[in-house]
This record gives sequence, C-alpha cells and structure tokens, in this order.
Amino acid sequence: MSRVLILSKYADEYRRLVEAAGLPGMEELAAAASPSEALALGDDFDVVFGEPSLIRDVLARLLDLRWVQSIWTGVEPLLDPALRRDYLLTNARGVFGGLMSEYIFGYLLQHERRMFERYRAQQEQRWEASVTGTLRGKTLGLLGVGSIGAALAGTARHFGMTVRGYTRASESCPDVNAYYHGSRLLDFATGLDYLVNVLPNTQETRRIVDASLLGRLPTHAVFVNVGRGSAVDESALVTALRTGKLAGAVLDVFEQEPLPAGHVFWHTPNLLMTFHTSAPSFPGDLARLFIENYRRYADGRSPLHAVDFEKGY
Amino acid sequence: MSRVLILSKYADEYRRLVEAAGLPGMEELAAAASPSEALALGDDFDVVFGEPSLIRDVLARLLDLRWVQSIWTGVEPLLDPALRRDYLLTNARGVFGGLMSEYIFGYLLQHERRMFERYRAQQEQRWEASVTGTLRGKTLGLLGVGSIGAALAGTARHFGMTVRGYTRASESCPDVNAYYHGSRLLDFATGLDYLVNVLPNTQETRRIVDASLLGRLPTHAVFVNVGRGSAVDESALVTALRTGKLAGAVLDVFEQEPLPAGHVFWHTPNLLMTFHTSAPSFPGDLARLFIENYRRYADGRSPLHAVDFEKGY
Repeated sequence: MSRVLILSKYADEYRRLVEAAGLPGMEELAAAASPSEALALGDDFDVVFGEPSLIRDVLARLLDLRWVQSIWTGVEPLLDPALRRDYLLTNARGVFGGLMSEYIFGYLLQHERRMFERYRAQQEQRWEASVTGTLRGKTLGLLGVGSIGAALAGTARHFGMTVRGYTRASESCPDVNAYYHGSRLLDFATGLDYLVNVLPNTQETRRIVDASLLGRLPTHAVFVNVGRGSAVDESALVTALRTGKLAGAVLDVFEQEPLPAGHVFWHTPNLLMTFHTSAPSFPGDLARLFIENYRRYADGRSPLHAVDFEKGY
Repeated sequence: MSRVLILSKYADEYRRLVEAAGLPGMEELAAAASPSEALALGDDFDVVFGEPSLIRDVLARLLDLRWVQSIWTGVEPLLDPALRRDYLLTNARGVFGGLMSEYIFGYLLQHERRMFERYRAQQEQRWEASVTGTLRGKTLGLLGVGSIGAALAGTARHFGMTVRGYTRASESCPDVNAYYHGSRLLDFATGLDYLVNVLPNTQETRRIVDASLLGRLPTHAVFVNVGRGSAVDESALVTALRTGKLAGAVLDVFEQEPLPAGHVFWHTPNLLMTFHTSAPSFPGDLARLFIENYRRYADGRSPLHAVDFEKGY
C-alpha cells in the first residue's frame, strides 16, 4: 500500500486527474501546494509527485520516501550533492516533444516567413511581397537528441530538412541524418542553418555554445535555446548578434529567470525571448505520465525515466 | 519535334534549368520575358511554359499551340470564355503543398505562441510567461482538399490536430478525419479552431466565407485565406474581427492585388496580411514539373494536372 503526496502549484488539478484514474493500492493521496502545507499533512509518504523546487524542501523529512516523480524534465533542485539520493527519481520525458516541436518550428517558420517584417510593412500600408524562405533543404543541428530532440528531428524531416545530432554517444533516432560526438562539436556546427540546444545542464554542457562554436555558423544562421541558459556564453552570443555574424537567436531559458532588468539580452538586436514558455506542463500530460509510472511502481516494476544523479538527467 | 516557348519573368532561369535536363525531341527552346518579346521570336510554338498572365496575350497568335504548362496553380487569365480553348492546359499542382504547409502552420503556431504579444513584452522589458496554446487537439477545417489541402492535412496530423475537409465530392486524403460536401458547409464550420480556405476561384466558391459561415466559428477561431480573395465576403470578415466574433485572420490573397491604399483591411484589428507570398514559385520546382510533363508529352502520353476549362481548375 502506498501513501502518495502531490506537491505542486497545481496540486488540486493533479489530485483530481490522479483520483479519476482509480489507481490500485493507494492508501492515501494527499495534495499540497507548498512544502509547509505538505508537512502538515504528514511525513510518511513513500511517493511524491510534483515540482522539484518544492520537493527539495520536504526531502529530508520523508523517512519512508522511495520514489519521486518530477513534473519537470530538468531536476536541478534535487541534484545538490548535499541532498539525499536514497530514492528513485524519475523525470518528465516523452511529454514535451510535441510542444517543443510546435515552439521550435513556429519560430523557425517565423524567421523564414519574416513575420515581424511583414507585419511592420502592413502597419505602413506597404505591399511587401518579397520572396520568403523555406525550411525545405535547410540543415538543423540538434545539440542533444533525447526524447525532445527526437521529436524535433521528426518534424524537421516532415518539413524536408536535413538533421545533424550531437550526442554523448547515442545514435538511436532514425530521423537524424548524421551524428557527431565528443571532439567533433565544431564539425557538427559548421554550416548549419539552424542550431537548437536541447541539452540538460551538466558540467560538460556549460558554455558549450561559445564563440568558437558560433563562429562555425554561417551569418544567416539562427540559434534557439530550449535547453538551459548555462549552455550559452552570453557575451559571445551578444557579440555574434551585434556584429551580424549570426542572423538571430530565440532564447527560452536563461541563467537567471526572470531575466533581470537591465540584462544585455533585453536590448540585443535580432534576439527574441520567450520567457521559459516553450513547453508548458499541461497537467493532463504529466498526470498521464505519473499514472503510468505509478502502475509500474505498484506492480513492482521500475517506473520509466529514472534520473542518474551523477549524470544529472 | 517540338518548338517550346518559355514566357516568364524568370525566362532565363527556366531556360537554363530546362536546357540542363537535355530533353529529347526539342527542335527549339525559346525564352521571352514579355509577350512582345515572345512574338518577335516566332509564332510556331506548340508548347508554352510560363505565367498565365503573359501567355494570355500571345494565345491568339500561336496557331500550332497544343499544350500550355502554367507555372501557377490558378489559371484565371486563361479562363476568359472569349479566349481559345483548343489546347491542353496543365497547371502547377503537387508543387506548393510543402510551402503552403510552412506558411499555414507558421501562422497557426504564431497565433498559439502569441509571438507578437511576447515580442511587445520583450520591448517593454516585461517577463511575459503566460501559458501558451498548442495545436494538439485542435480542429482544422480545410475548404478544399486538393494537393495543397492534402499536404496541410498531413502537417495538421503531425501536430496532433483533427482535420475536417469540405470538398465537392472527393474523399481521397487519408489525413482528413471527416469530410463534408454540398449543403453541409455550416456543419463543417461549426466549432472549428482554424478555418483555412484553399479553394480555387469558381462560381460556387465566390463569397463562400460569408457572415453565416463565420458565425459558426467560435470566437477564438482564426481564418486563413490562401485560396482566392473572391472567396471572402470582405465586409462580413471585417465585422467579425471588429466585433470580436473572430480572433484573427491571416490573408495572403485579395480580390485586388496589390491591396489598394485605403482598403479597410489595412486597418482591421487582428488581421495579418502576407501579400501573396504564401507559396513562392521557386523555379527549380516548376522546371521539374515542366520537365516531367514534357517527357510525357514527347512520349505521346498525357501531361499531368490538366485543367478543366469549365470547372476552372
């Protein structure tokens, strides 16, 4: 029998969705929107489902804890080496690929179609019929090809693009035309039309998008970051945009969020920012993942998408 | 042996592409950028490849004419009942589906992601992290399911949408979930999240998008027109947008192009216009179509995509 704690800003909605599934072997299903509220409900939960940033603050008190299901993909708040690691941590994977595809290809198409420029023309009552670009035949480079990268590769192929993938070792996605690893990072980047970073935050990915990598992109290229802000050398990116060495950047994630007032990104030319909205956590999606994983847990099987605390993902 | 005239604004580029194919049985390959230039080259051509608007002006003079390949999909300039019809007219089909998909889904994603609103927030240095919409689970209605509509249906399915198709009779596209015909137009429109018009200009499609059809759309719906401007009752559309009965419109085509100065569309709220740029005629695509059809013609087979002068497409 399990005692389950939902600890989330959207606790009530998640509880409703989980209750509706009529899961077996659940002795208790508690829902709290804050750590203090959670601890007032008890400390004998073996399963916790929610946001890592909230779960972090109850971790030390839950002596019976066996499994945590994160509703995020990134689980940084739980990776602090000072925190316990004697439980199974699973993250959200296979959930955000479609949403990320909508985001990435929305902005890629915005760029090809010059939507902002055409809108400005419209406001000036100017018939702006210059020929648009197309994604067909262009090359997309994916820094990281996990479940999100694989979804992006599928959409890129749908639109007739060529796809390169840079990964630690895996080569499992059939929609990637060519894989690159390790020291071949600069070969990977050379000549890309679009570079998309989907990498998690690890020691090896810090500042991976630096001046030398950006220097391999043609001046018409666009960089999109949906991985982590820490992957980018901010001053190298600003320099590339300001000097016209890069046509554009679309940034969803930042080292500090919300981005502080006065940050150089606010007034860097050809930089669009989207305020960490690329892949919203729709409760129905995450509840479905939790329900599937809970059934596995209740059956004595391993829940999917276990995080390796050392690797960080 | 054939005598081929290329009559196009891009005549030189088309000639280069066609020459490179080394087609059999071509006695002459002439290229002209205007009707007068064309007639100076002779009047004994049996094959003409180019823009209908230019071909119209040489039609009466080409006594040996047997086949015209249009580089457009719409062939209105050649449909005037006063013009001869004693030749085979083929139009451009199967060429623009991918480009139209990029256009339509670019603007649909722009709407879901609120790109313009987020850009305004960025300019005001305001962190605008409100949750975005998604195409997944939404319903797209296609007015017309020819080769372009079929391509749009495929992309809609890729993004997890449901697709309705309104056609004269055909039900051949597997990516359309439900077909509607004839008097079921208002049923087709009821509750659509997105309505896209891809219909050619015919008597039956004039003003098909009128107040009663727009009245069946929910207030959050968006209408996109890539068919013909004549399909839309302009004042009904403007009223729907001004009164908030429709969330947005994206118009690529207009009854008069360029849109005249002072036209109400220039200052209608939530209306985006794209100046007939949705599916550019990339010479490589059209040359490939002509080359394929020429081989058929030279072999005595029928070129593909014959236009029915009565139907108009």
